[in-house]
Amino acid sequence: MTEIAPLPEPPYFAVIFTSQRHAREGDGYDAMATTMVELAAAQAGFLGMESARGPDGLGITVSYWNSEAAITAWKDNARHRVAQRLGKAGWYDRYCLRIARVERQYEGPAGR
Amino acid sequence: MTEIAPLPEPPYFAVIFTSQRHAREGDGYDAMATTMVELAAAQAGFLGMESARGPDGLGITVSYWNSEAAITAWKDNARHRVAQRLGKAGWYDRYCLRIARVERQYEGPAGR
Repeated sequence: MTEIAPLPEPPYFAVIFTSQRHAREGDGYDAMATTMVELAAAQAGFLGMESARGPDGLGITVSYWNSEAAITAWKDNARHRVAQRLGKAGWYDRYCLRIARVERQYEGPAGR
Repeated sequence: MTEIAPLPEPPYFAVIFTSQRHAREGDGYDAMATTMVELAAAQAGFLGMESARGPDGLGITVSYWNSEAAITAWKDNARHRVAQRLGKAGWYDRYCLRIARVERQYEGPAGR
């Protein structure tokens, strides 16, 4: 989760999850986040995941999938598994989730 | 740059830039990064930008654009402005850049 994800041949799909969070110890966030990653990695169609959160509390997690159907299956699975906790917790001040189709890609540094 | 970007009506385009960097003081990185953000914000078609880098050095910056042509214009402009420095600096151990088309989006927390 803290490495650059593999680069399969486009097109494939990305879920861009951006969230603003203020750190609150003991609210169950870390356990939920771990569960979400494990669910993703075990799901058919999962290609990889990248995640970063800065000291200001803004976090970006991008997961990559080989189809939109795989994203839907992950969402349904995750909702089932963490729904009860999701309802109770105030993990995020705000979040945005975008579903996108990756069309092209590049990597570097050049010359390596 | 450290806030969640606005959510215009899809479809629109995203540039997902993931990089692995080891902090090196005085290498000109911060100045380059500031220039890149300023160039983006001044470019026609720019919709917003989100950025996070964790303590492990993995960073994700996502910029949003109303067309692929706007992304190309930004790339050409940025290349022109920072090309000389880009060639000299070893800012990144590795980076990946993905161009994607945002199809759908959601925001929360629900009920707000």
